[in-house]
Amino acid sequence: MSEQSLESLLRPELQGQSPYGAPQLDVPVALNTNESSYDVPESVVASIVERVEKAAGGLNRYPDREFTELRAALAEYLARVTGVRLPIEQIWAANGSNEVLSHIVQAFGGPGRTALGFTPSYSMHPIISRGAGTTWIDGLRDRHEGVYDLDADLAVEQVREHQPNVVFVCTPNNPTGTAVTNDVVEAIYDATDHAVVIVDEAYVEFARPGTASAVELLDGRPRLVVSRTMSKAFAFAGARVGYLAASQEFCDAMRLVRLPYHLSSVTQAVALAALDHADEMLGMVDAIKHERDRIVATCTELGFTPTPSDANFVLVGGFADEKQTWQALLDRGILVREVGISHHLRITAGTPRETDAVLAALTDLAPTHKG
Amino acid sequence: MSEQSLESLLRPELQGQSPYGAPQLDVPVALNTNESSYDVPESVVASIVERVEKAAGGLNRYPDREFTELRAALAEYLARVTGVRLPIEQIWAANGSNEVLSHIVQAFGGPGRTALGFTPSYSMHPIISRGAGTTWIDGLRDRHEGVYDLDADLAVEQVREHQPNVVFVCTPNNPTGTAVTNDVVEAIYDATDHAVVIVDEAYVEFARPGTASAVELLDGRPRLVVSRTMSKAFAFAGARVGYLAASQEFCDAMRLVRLPYHLSSVTQAVALAALDHADEMLGMVDAIKHERDRIVATCTELGFTPTPSDANFVLVGGFADEKQTWQALLDRGILVREVGISHHLRITAGTPRETDAVLAALTDLAPTHKG
Repeated sequence: MSEQSLESLLRPELQGQSPYGAPQLDVPVALNTNESSYDVPESVVASIVERVEKAAGGLNRYPDREFTELRAALAEYLARVTGVRLPIEQIWAANGSNEVLSHIVQAFGGPGRTALGFTPSYSMHPIISRGAGTTWIDGLRDRHEGVYDLDADLAVEQVREHQPNVVFVCTPNNPTGTAVTNDVVEAIYDATDHAVVIVDEAYVEFARPGTASAVELLDGRPRLVVSRTMSKAFAFAGARVGYLAASQEFCDAMRLVRLPYHLSSVTQAVALAALDHADEMLGMVDAIKHERDRIVATCTELGFTPTPSDANFVLVGGFADEKQTWQALLDRGILVREVGISHHLRITAGTPRETDAVLAALTDLAPTHKG
Repeated sequence: MSEQSLESLLRPELQGQSPYGAPQLDVPVALNTNESSYDVPESVVASIVERVEKAAGGLNRYPDREFTELRAALAEYLARVTGVRLPIEQIWAANGSNEVLSHIVQAFGGPGRTALGFTPSYSMHPIISRGAGTTWIDGLRDRHEGVYDLDADLAVEQVREHQPNVVFVCTPNNPTGTAVTNDVVEAIYDATDHAVVIVDEAYVEFARPGTASAVELLDGRPRLVVSRTMSKAFAFAGARVGYLAASQEFCDAMRLVRLPYHLSSVTQAVALAALDHADEMLGMVDAIKHERDRIVATCTELGFTPTPSDANFVLVGGFADEKQTWQALLDRGILVREVGISHHLRITAGTPRETDAVLAALTDLAPTHKG
C-alpha cells in the first residue's frame, strides 16, 4: 500500500498550522509573556520544599482526584480577595487556566456549537474553542477601530445576534489591558438564556483598587463562570495552576470532561504551599503596577499611544512597523510581544531595571520608529 | 428570558453521563487502580526535593515549553530498557499517558473520524476518543467469548473493514493482562496506509522477559506511536507523567494540539529526579510479578479462572456475581476493580501482605461466590 504523508493524516484544520507560542529566547530582559519578573521568595520556596517532601514518598499512589484540600485553599483565597465565601464544590482547578478554559469549552461547546469573543482578546480563546471543535465567532470590542474598551451595548447586541453557546469576556483584557465593570458582565449574561459566560480574570489582581470580581455575581447565575490563574499576580507561572469559580452544578460538569487525576499530587502540594503564603506571593503587585503606569507615562511622552492598563502589561501603539521595532528591541536584549495588531506591541511590566531598559531603548528608537 | 437547566446546555453526548473514575476509598488494601503498593524510596525522595528546591525559586517563569531535559532523560531510559536510542525529537510527554493519548487523538482523530480498539481493553481509550469527537468502533479481540488474547488475523480484518483513522493496541492489555508480540503490531500497521497505530505499553515493564517493545518497530513507520507511563512499574502515579515515542514529524504534530506549557516546571523536575534513579524506581517490579503469579496460581486452585498476565494485575473470572464479590471484598477492607465484564474482577498485584489478604478473602468466599 502506498504510504501517505503524516501531515495529510492530521485533522484537516491542523494541516499547515504552526504551534501556538511566543519565542522562548534567553534574553536579559524578557517582557513578552506577562510573567512576574520577581522570583518566588525564599520563605515560600522552603514551604514548597516541605510540602513536596511530604508528598514525594506517596507518589506511587494516584493523586486525590478531587483535590479537596486545594479547592478549600482556593476558596479561602477567593474569600479574602473578593469577600465572597464559596463552598469548595464551587471551585475547580486544572493545569493552568488554559486547561480550565478547555474543560469549560469541552463541556459546553463542541461540534455544531459556537463561542463568541470580543477581539482583540486572549489569542488562546479561539484556539481552545476550535480545539474542542467549536466554531469561533470573532466579535468586536467597539465600532471604532483602535478603541479597546468593550462597548457594553455592542457586546449585548452581538450575543443576541449570534446566539452563541459560550461567551468569553476577558477582564482585564489581554492584550489591551482594559477592564469591564460587573454591570457589563451582567448585561451580557442577561442577553442570553443558554450561553455559558466565561469571565477570564487572569489579570484581575492588577486592576485598579475597587474593581469588583465577577465572583460577586455568581449567586443565582448558574451559567456564569469566573476563570483565574496563579500564573500572573501570584508569580507562579511555572507551577501551572488555574482555577474557576461557578455554581456547584457547573463544577460537577467539569468532571465529565477532565482526564482522571489531571492534577498531580506535586502540583497540589506546591499550590497549597503558595496559597499558604498568598501575601508574599502577591507582594510585588503594587510595584509591578507602578512600573506599568511608568511605561504608559513615558510612552505617551515619547509620542507613542499606550492604552491605560488594569493588567501587568501595556499595549503600546504608534509604531511605524511593529515587527521592525520588535527586532530592534530584541537586538538590544529586550523581548516584547507582537500580538498581531498593526503598529502595536505588548510590553510586560517587570522590575524597575527592566522598565528602565525598555524605556531607554524606546526613547532611543522613537525618532525613527514612530508611525 | 426563561432560564434553561445547566444540564440541558451540556454537549448532547455528555448529558446524563457519570464521570469516569474508580471509587477513591480509604481502605487497608487498595488493589483497584494498578498503582505500585511500594512507596517511593527515601533516596529518590531526597533527589526529588533537591530538584524541586532548585526549580521553586524560578516558578514565577513559565516552564520550558519543550521540556528538553526531560525528553533527553526519557530517551536515555528508553535506550536502556529497549536498546533503541532515539533522538529527543522522537519523544513527547504529557500529564499522564491519558493526556498523551488525548494529544494523539486530538491531532489525528476528531469529528467525522473513527478510532478502533479491541475490547475489552483500557476503558479510557473510547472516552478519550469520544472526548475529541471521534467515533469509537468497538472491535473484538477474538471470535470466542472469554478468550482474551488478541487474534492477529481478526485484528487485521477489522482494520481493513473499518478503515479507522486511529487504532489502539494495548499490550500488555488492560484489563486482561495479555500481551501481543511485535509481529501482530506490524501486521496491524501494514493493514492500513492511513491509520495512526497507537501501541499503549503502560504495563510493558511487567511483561515476561524477552518481550520486545514496539519501540523497536518505529524506524520507517511514521504512523506508529508507542505510549508509555511512569505511573505503573515506575511507581510514580501521583506525578502524572506519560510519554510517547514516535517519528519526529509525529512528535512535531503534538505541538499543534497541546496547551502551551502543559508540563509544569515541577512536573519536569520530579520526573527528572525519578529518571535519575530508574533502577530504584523499578526495583519492585520483580517482586510485584511474583505476587501477580501467586494470584494466578491460587485463584486457579480455588476454582476461579484467572487470565495469565504480563501486567501488574490479574483479571479473575468465575464469580457468580462479581458485584457481590466486589462488595464482600470491600467489607473485608479490600478494594478491587469491577471492569464491566460479567463474572470477572481485576486485582492489582501489590505487596505480599496485600496478596495474602486478598487470597485469604477469596479462599473464604470461594465456596459461595463461585459461578
